[in-house]
Amino acid sequence: MKNLYDEASRPIGVFDSGIGGLTVVKELSRLLPNEKIVYFGDTARVPYGNKSKETIIHYSLQIAYFLLKKKIKMLVVACNSASSVSMPTLKRHFHIPVIGVIEPGAISAISASQKKSIGVIGTLGTVSSNSYKKALKKIDKKVIVSQQACPLFVPLAEDGWNKIKIAQDISDEYIKELAKKGIDILILGCTHYPLLKDVIQCSVGKKVKLIDSGVETAKEVKKILEKKGLLNIHKQTERNHSVFYVSDFPHKFKEVSQRFLSKELKYVHKVKL
Amino acid sequence: MKNLYDEASRPIGVFDSGIGGLTVVKELSRLLPNEKIVYFGDTARVPYGNKSKETIIHYSLQIAYFLLKKKIKMLVVACNSASSVSMPTLKRHFHIPVIGVIEPGAISAISASQKKSIGVIGTLGTVSSNSYKKALKKIDKKVIVSQQACPLFVPLAEDGWNKIKIAQDISDEYIKELAKKGIDILILGCTHYPLLKDVIQCSVGKKVKLIDSGVETAKEVKKILEKKGLLNIHKQTERNHSVFYVSDFPHKFKEVSQRFLSKELKYVHKVKL
Repeated sequence: MKNLYDEASRPIGVFDSGIGGLTVVKELSRLLPNEKIVYFGDTARVPYGNKSKETIIHYSLQIAYFLLKKKIKMLVVACNSASSVSMPTLKRHFHIPVIGVIEPGAISAISASQKKSIGVIGTLGTVSSNSYKKALKKIDKKVIVSQQACPLFVPLAEDGWNKIKIAQDISDEYIKELAKKGIDILILGCTHYPLLKDVIQCSVGKKVKLIDSGVETAKEVKKILEKKGLLNIHKQTERNHSVFYVSDFPHKFKEVSQRFLSKELKYVHKVKL
Repeated sequence: MKNLYDEASRPIGVFDSGIGGLTVVKELSRLLPNEKIVYFGDTARVPYGNKSKETIIHYSLQIAYFLLKKKIKMLVVACNSASSVSMPTLKRHFHIPVIGVIEPGAISAISASQKKSIGVIGTLGTVSSNSYKKALKKIDKKVIVSQQACPLFVPLAEDGWNKIKIAQDISDEYIKELAKKGIDILILGCTHYPLLKDVIQCSVGKKVKLIDSGVETAKEVKKILEKKGLLNIHKQTERNHSVFYVSDFPHKFKEVSQRFLSKELKYVHKVKL
């Protein structure tokens, strides 16, 4: 018999192509404060969006093996590009639960939509891959999906330009076509976008509900851990806490990561995979 | 004795981490229409700016060897990040002339500046590396250099948002501090920025001269080829023309590359290094 007590005290593994996945960590920490997280941000090889499917799967496996060695009890793929292509391979390779950010976002969007007309915004890579569209259509094939790539949102979020008028103008420019399509739900299909929530909400209007994939993913993690009896009942301590690994320290890493996590990022290590 | 006639008919090798280097190709083609170019854009591994020095040198060597096999007579490193770190290694490894984009830009800036107060704009990587500042100070250690990273300019240029008011607002926001510093020269330290020349000129004011590193590099290439008797006297033909290689076809590649080259990009091949 497995010792659930021991297994429950293990950390949750989370990875992203960069630091965007920290918005998912933020939601996980809010919802499940006892859970320790081992995060890997592939900052040396970011972005994944323009890489081939084979390369993304190869990187995802490399990172997953690294996190497995840290004895994680569950793996969260907090990267839209990796979630879009690596899930079947990761699920086949590992016996722990593996979840991505796309499915939880899509499920929540469908259940919240009255009009069954859903908007998706993301990077050019995510939008071109149609990964949200496919996930939404898989749940309800009649749903109407309108997509818009917003390439300026990532640098806007990283630079902390989320409060200035330019951000609102850029957001209005991207959203104006989507807003005409009668959507009642808009999925934030990029882990950077929660930082721009206020301007996006303003562009799309109050009647449209924003779905933050990070929030939905955190809820799904909680459900899975509850179901499997794997929730950690012990608080984190000074000696037993979340740890963050990156493959490189990009410029302004500290400043930008704090913006994403909304608190100081401690215990960060650079590793070569 | 070397056969200069044969050597002169060989192509010029040009590489960049992505498609930005096409603005340098555009200038080369304008100044030296007879010259065939073999271009390599490392679109699978773009951007280089956040990669380590060792990685960038390794990639530069890989690409240079690939281009050498295409029998190039000269190598142009049309990438600021690679120019900043790989030049000594490339010059040591190869016997053909090798030039980057930083030195020609810096030399031209110094000779054009009356006030000896020069501004530099570039990506976060280029600005943090201080590569232009070092090159400028090497020529004239008394020159005052003011730098500003403009992370939104690359997606703005790639999206063709160079004519709309938002581009002007973003540019004004970046340039406002630089404009106060009494500079009389502003170096466009990123191969993407010539697409935003008009808005940048408007932000900085008419009295400040913009230096486009691509233009200066093309002039330098011409000088070197003339000096070595390597100018091609034969026009390009249907069977003998410039060729473009990329390591991946990113989204909207055709549209974006045409925007950079100002004409249709023909003879493009994807290769794995």
